[in-house]
Amino acid sequence: MRKLYVIGIGAGDPDQVTVQAIKAMRKAEAFFVIGKGAEKQELVDVRTTILAEHVDTPYRIIEIADPPRERTPADYAGVVVDWHERRSELLEAAFDQVDGTGAILVWGDPALYDSTLRMVEHVLARGRVSFEHEVIPGVTSIAALAARHRMVLHRIGEPVHVTTGRRLREEGLGPGSTVVMLDGECSFTEVRGDDVHIWWGAYLGMPDEILIEGDLREVESRIVARRAELRAEKGWIMDVYLLRDGSRAETR
Amino acid sequence: MRKLYVIGIGAGDPDQVTVQAIKAMRKAEAFFVIGKGAEKQELVDVRTTILAEHVDTPYRIIEIADPPRERTPADYAGVVVDWHERRSELLEAAFDQVDGTGAILVWGDPALYDSTLRMVEHVLARGRVSFEHEVIPGVTSIAALAARHRMVLHRIGEPVHVTTGRRLREEGLGPGSTVVMLDGECSFTEVRGDDVHIWWGAYLGMPDEILIEGDLREVESRIVARRAELRAEKGWIMDVYLLRDGSRAETR
Repeated sequence: MRKLYVIGIGAGDPDQVTVQAIKAMRKAEAFFVIGKGAEKQELVDVRTTILAEHVDTPYRIIEIADPPRERTPADYAGVVVDWHERRSELLEAAFDQVDGTGAILVWGDPALYDSTLRMVEHVLARGRVSFEHEVIPGVTSIAALAARHRMVLHRIGEPVHVTTGRRLREEGLGPGSTVVMLDGECSFTEVRGDDVHIWWGAYLGMPDEILIEGDLREVESRIVARRAELRAEKGWIMDVYLLRDGSRAETR
Repeated sequence: MRKLYVIGIGAGDPDQVTVQAIKAMRKAEAFFVIGKGAEKQELVDVRTTILAEHVDTPYRIIEIADPPRERTPADYAGVVVDWHERRSELLEAAFDQVDGTGAILVWGDPALYDSTLRMVEHVLARGRVSFEHEVIPGVTSIAALAARHRMVLHRIGEPVHVTTGRRLREEGLGPGSTVVMLDGECSFTEVRGDDVHIWWGAYLGMPDEILIEGDLREVESRIVARRAELRAEKGWIMDVYLLRDGSRAETR
């Protein structure tokens, strides 16, 4: 029986990898790397560093090209499903090159806004290749953001709402504190209120890490400007933030 | 300048510790262990295992007794704040025994439903002792739950709501998928609906790990019974679950 490990490797700092992840990597004979073509060298380097530092068994890297995807479609979910399907076919073909154990390294944790597990389910549902699979959890970018700001995500006993930039624009803040991921458009500028606080971070755990925190109305334009500068300078950005409306405090 | 590391050590599997956490532990001359008196031996053992396996520098363990706390108070937030204050005084006194670097090991991640960081802030605000502090993020029990069920926490593009058992009873399901932590009372039985799915896990990553997944109405009584049995047998339980209402699907 072939086996696939889906391994969370943390939010950007190579040292955020777990012992469990390292042990799984050492069992893999091949690593499937998805979307490497489009990915920035710095992100590739984090994975290379992790493998070089912790895996001394021989392994192969099998690259899987990322199929193109319409970025702002009317039928968002439909396009994503179709894109997962095309990626699944590519993973299926790649697995034909492996006899034993393969692994996919995933930024952060595989359970949050990452398509690898859906892709694996597609491949298994198609039934052409069979393998068992095991998921190794990782440190999320949310935990990394909170750690760098040395904060707890929620007020005492309150909830945390984790959402996307798209939904923040459509629905506003959730109950309690709101974490926003996958926001390429600075959707925080569309959040109303005069007592909203933001904790923002980009390139968490990497050499260019930047943190900005403060009253949203006071710092939002600075975040927008720094984000645009950094993105232009480096060619890519990974960021995440937490919003909390002080005027909606339910408990203190 | 003295230093305190607040270190997330993962959800229960000693191998869920990160390389970053191990490096921080090796810099500490003392570990403050809070609430050890009330804690079950098995939980103490996980920390002992991690330290024994990864830290070969000499270190001391300084125990801090956990002050008693009213469990079902009318003024929930008030009681918690007061309890944090009393724990802060104890941490302050313990830090007097350390000249250089101390560390506190926290289950899961320090940013989610853990009081360590609030306690540290209290100590710093009191101003009697001063130290810098750094937070090392950890794998959350949420990520561990999702990994063991090999699932993504949310449907495509949808939010994840993280809340407590208390709030689930008061407010019902959040938008999207709902993760419930700190639920000692099987509050899922009070969630209405005939198309709700549950993914439950207890003792995640530990030898007695148990997973139950299925239609909530079909499996709820089995979870209640197993939870009561295990709790009685072992004297303690740590569990977490995710709920999703299929009838409220916003996208597929």
